[in-house]
Amino acid sequence: MTKLDTIRQFLTQKQAALAIFSDPVTIDYLTGFACDPHERQLFLFVYQDKQPVIFVPALEIARAEKSVSFQVIGYMDSENPWEKLAACLPSTTAKKIYAEFDHLNITKFQGLQTVFTGHFENLTPTIQRMRLIKSADEIQKMMIAGDFADKAVRVGFDAISLQATETDIIAQIEFQMKKQGISKMSFDTMVLTGNNAADPHGIPGTNPIENNALLLFDLGVETLGYTSDMTRTVAVGKPDQFKRDIYEICLEAQLTAQEFIKPGVTASEVDAAARKVIEKAGYGQYFNHRLGHGLGMDVHEYPSIMAGNDMIIEEGMCFSVEPGIYIPGKVGVRIEDCGHVTASGFQVFTKTPKELQYFEG
Amino acid sequence: MTKLDTIRQFLTQKQAALAIFSDPVTIDYLTGFACDPHERQLFLFVYQDKQPVIFVPALEIARAEKSVSFQVIGYMDSENPWEKLAACLPSTTAKKIYAEFDHLNITKFQGLQTVFTGHFENLTPTIQRMRLIKSADEIQKMMIAGDFADKAVRVGFDAISLQATETDIIAQIEFQMKKQGISKMSFDTMVLTGNNAADPHGIPGTNPIENNALLLFDLGVETLGYTSDMTRTVAVGKPDQFKRDIYEICLEAQLTAQEFIKPGVTASEVDAAARKVIEKAGYGQYFNHRLGHGLGMDVHEYPSIMAGNDMIIEEGMCFSVEPGIYIPGKVGVRIEDCGHVTASGFQVFTKTPKELQYFEG
Repeated sequence: MTKLDTIRQFLTQKQAALAIFSDPVTIDYLTGFACDPHERQLFLFVYQDKQPVIFVPALEIARAEKSVSFQVIGYMDSENPWEKLAACLPSTTAKKIYAEFDHLNITKFQGLQTVFTGHFENLTPTIQRMRLIKSADEIQKMMIAGDFADKAVRVGFDAISLQATETDIIAQIEFQMKKQGISKMSFDTMVLTGNNAADPHGIPGTNPIENNALLLFDLGVETLGYTSDMTRTVAVGKPDQFKRDIYEICLEAQLTAQEFIKPGVTASEVDAAARKVIEKAGYGQYFNHRLGHGLGMDVHEYPSIMAGNDMIIEEGMCFSVEPGIYIPGKVGVRIEDCGHVTASGFQVFTKTPKELQYFEG
Repeated sequence: MTKLDTIRQFLTQKQAALAIFSDPVTIDYLTGFACDPHERQLFLFVYQDKQPVIFVPALEIARAEKSVSFQVIGYMDSENPWEKLAACLPSTTAKKIYAEFDHLNITKFQGLQTVFTGHFENLTPTIQRMRLIKSADEIQKMMIAGDFADKAVRVGFDAISLQATETDIIAQIEFQMKKQGISKMSFDTMVLTGNNAADPHGIPGTNPIENNALLLFDLGVETLGYTSDMTRTVAVGKPDQFKRDIYEICLEAQLTAQEFIKPGVTASEVDAAARKVIEKAGYGQYFNHRLGHGLGMDVHEYPSIMAGNDMIIEEGMCFSVEPGIYIPGKVGVRIEDCGHVTASGFQVFTKTPKELQYFEG
């Protein structure tokens, strides 16, 4: 059964005529056609009982026709996309229409309402659930993305120097990755030294690498349509005992959560497994974010691994485990691996060692 | 008058109590607080007659408090953001509420509807209009972003070699920019050789640079919160007469449009000025996109410079002028500058020469 068949089956079950996809990543997931339409319109229409139709900006028609085996409709910048849709789509009297409520903005929604008279229902939970459980093929691609993240962080380690700034090291990492054919990092690479790492969303700059401090790397690569995401915190010179203690607490929390993961436990329990370690050590207030997030084609996907999420963990789910302890003005540590849930546990995509590594500046 | 005063004035005029901003770039524009909340919630509430409130993920509270002088409300990943908003926002009986319909997705909209009972109206045209006319300070920043784009394309020219691939050159460009302190390109840098450039949305890869062909660079940098965007097409070796002719037609179209721009003409007329040159030469069908797009804090902003847009050009508007001719399997050319409209014409942000430049491979 293809992914589009799964959507059609869902529509049959719900007695709905049509599902409208607007998230370019979902459209890529379902059809293999990857396209960033910027502010232009891009929609995939999947009908219960008709062939799908994809609607693309005119300059994407040729690429779309190479990717999909069903009808491609293009529109020029000077055309009204809603009028074009009304004129070109197969006529339908759909009473119930599904759309991605987490993606569709109100302007697009109002545009679609001029084309379709039916009642709109939310498709987001359905597509989130589909994308949540990764196939063996997807996991293979995520392993490759993980391998590249390991290589990238290694480049970063090799570039550590007291003469370098955060952005110097980032430049080295991204250059070497591009040379290896990686066209895109999953997100802006972060290299944060000393106090800058004590801000969970610190912004890298021209800060020189501090000696006798911790240095945080958070990075990921995108390859074959899938993403990786990892964080390592390492020592430059000889950080004091307090910093090393905070590191060890964070590491214990990370390992405890990873060991806890298996089918049947809940996302909330996984978060708690890590959080308890940090709370017990007295630093609970400094771990002020969820433990992790799903990832796949997007680097942040459904679900959140956090308190209050009673979702049951299943085989094939892929997510991050990334506890952090951020004590403003003192120290910041985060340790992160992403992995997939197997029948018996959690297998990580990134293999860079996690015992505290020391580098001379 | 501050930008927030302008919003309050708008609300008074419209007899509306509240404007809700959800686009992180708009929030940065209005407050100076730059934040990418990913899938978390970020809102700015501007009241007609109360102090503004910004709602951020917990881990952004400290940064937000440094940026703004009004109330910051944070929420933890494990909290329901809508309940938190309902509990913490000043009570209001707003009947009319403005929100950014081009940004707000239906899920967020439904969340806000549990917090506010008023009727929602579209704020997008108002904020688009505000962002459309750039101040002298903004134009200054865009000039700096333009200078960096000139530097970046120069790095690319210096890296041209028949031994290099498209991605090799991209790696060089982005590395040198990062070394110069540019943390972010405006978009994924494009270097497209030969037939790959004949696709207006060709994707760079490991294609070696072709000899006796054209080579297209499309890039921009982001600096001080503002973006640049430029395209240059150059000759590698000795492209044949046909390719050089296509280049000259495209250049004439680009220069004609730039010379045509001044306050009082319409966006549609600017597009037509370039398009007529290409149509007259017999290649109209191969120029299959709008002439340009606005830019500023975002690299693609309102408006489109295209047929059908009767918006009157005014001083302070910033946009791209980028005609292209793409003949599949034969040749692709695009030439692009961004600039700002002055009292008497159009002043470009990028100064790299446009007469066809030749490089040895």
